[in-house]
Amino acid sequence: MGLELYLDLLSQPCRAVYIFAKKNGIPFELRTVDLRRGQHLSDAFAQVNPLQKVPVLKDGDFILTESVAILLYLARKYKVPDHWYPRDPQACARVDEYLAWQHTTLRRNCLRALWHKVMLPVFLGEPVSPEMLATTLAELDMALQVLEGKFLQDKAFLIGPHISLADLVAITELMHPVGAGCQVFKGRPKLAAWRQRVEAAVGEVLFQEAHEVILKAKDSQPADPSLKQKMLPKVLAMIQ
Amino acid sequence: MGLELYLDLLSQPCRAVYIFAKKNGIPFELRTVDLRRGQHLSDAFAQVNPLQKVPVLKDGDFILTESVAILLYLARKYKVPDHWYPRDPQACARVDEYLAWQHTTLRRNCLRALWHKVMLPVFLGEPVSPEMLATTLAELDMALQVLEGKFLQDKAFLIGPHISLADLVAITELMHPVGAGCQVFKGRPKLAAWRQRVEAAVGEVLFQEAHEVILKAKDSQPADPSLKQKMLPKVLAMIQ
Repeated sequence: MGLELYLDLLSQPCRAVYIFAKKNGIPFELRTVDLRRGQHLSDAFAQVNPLQKVPVLKDGDFILTESVAILLYLARKYKVPDHWYPRDPQACARVDEYLAWQHTTLRRNCLRALWHKVMLPVFLGEPVSPEMLATTLAELDMALQVLEGKFLQDKAFLIGPHISLADLVAITELMHPVGAGCQVFKGRPKLAAWRQRVEAAVGEVLFQEAHEVILKAKDSQPADPSLKQKMLPKVLAMIQ
Repeated sequence: MGLELYLDLLSQPCRAVYIFAKKNGIPFELRTVDLRRGQHLSDAFAQVNPLQKVPVLKDGDFILTESVAILLYLARKYKVPDHWYPRDPQACARVDEYLAWQHTTLRRNCLRALWHKVMLPVFLGEPVSPEMLATTLAELDMALQVLEGKFLQDKAFLIGPHISLADLVAITELMHPVGAGCQVFKGRPKLAAWRQRVEAAVGEVLFQEAHEVILKAKDSQPADPSLKQKMLPKVLAMIQ
């Protein structure tokens, strides 16, 4: 059995892994785990990942979770072009710095923006107070300022003149609030121009394909009551 | 100017960086940033890290934040023994997996346990409700289960037979709730035995030296009112 990737493109880290594998011609079997149908909560998937999360990489007997670890594993195993995760120690450290920073900042904010604006009210039928939504969007705004001011600055990409894993992880996050209808790039010409460069570097077709699901998230059908009951506590823990 | 590390050993990622550098004989100038005196909020430190956080590494003109990035940079630059961050792709991926996992789980829970149990009530004079403290400790308990069940299992260390960056990052986190008086290792003989192995691998003297401050955190003097006013919003954002 070759490389298998368990993904749902609704999930931002899954999109990063998907784009990275496709863009670099890494052959894999796609195992779709439909989050909105609760397939990640199934007994079958618990055999793959007891933590009930995507993405998961399966390479023979080797099972790996956590998108950042998966991206680094793929980058090393398939010897992708150096710019993705540079050998230069300082450039490499800049990628590591971004990947570490985003976990508790941009990642959290983008996830909360999507859930507070769309997935909780539309999909799970749980209202979110305007105050909470406003706080979430204000926190997202602060994280975007750091993304632009500390990481992007006046460079073409987050680390320098070429696209790296940092850009891929960042853009797939930002498409979460975009999918929720947030004007993330409005009034931020530097970030908007960076987005264009990232899309061009990835390739428009692949970028669109990977983001088709999230850009239609607003049209999610309401979950049935039993699924809602199963999912709600886990969702609330995830976006806390 | 050689390598400079801006640290306060009250901070768990700072302890990981400190122990790693000392253990591997990496020469550095220690720049202490006293968090309880608000030195991270000073204009002088904002020149080093506008995000007002420790740890920070300064290597000539190169300034690096984020403890995970700093640890990897040091591991590569100083060619430390392989077991810390193995060249073997699967073992290396296991370290990456742990380092990615802990950001939003064990790290968050250990930080909240310390602040809810000690630093908010004692240092900042802000009461925490028994319900909130109970929730925090229950979440910590769940993260400890994953640490033991998914990561440690029956191995000597988190990744295998030797200590790695994963163990160092994990133990320095766990000493946060220990410093707050939580019985983290009680009823968890596997984790308790692992702790002994990690302490022995690091060296008892260095381990104690690095944890002296946190083990006295309970004796923190109350912050003065102006410092409290400056710190409280940032603390609440940090531990949310």
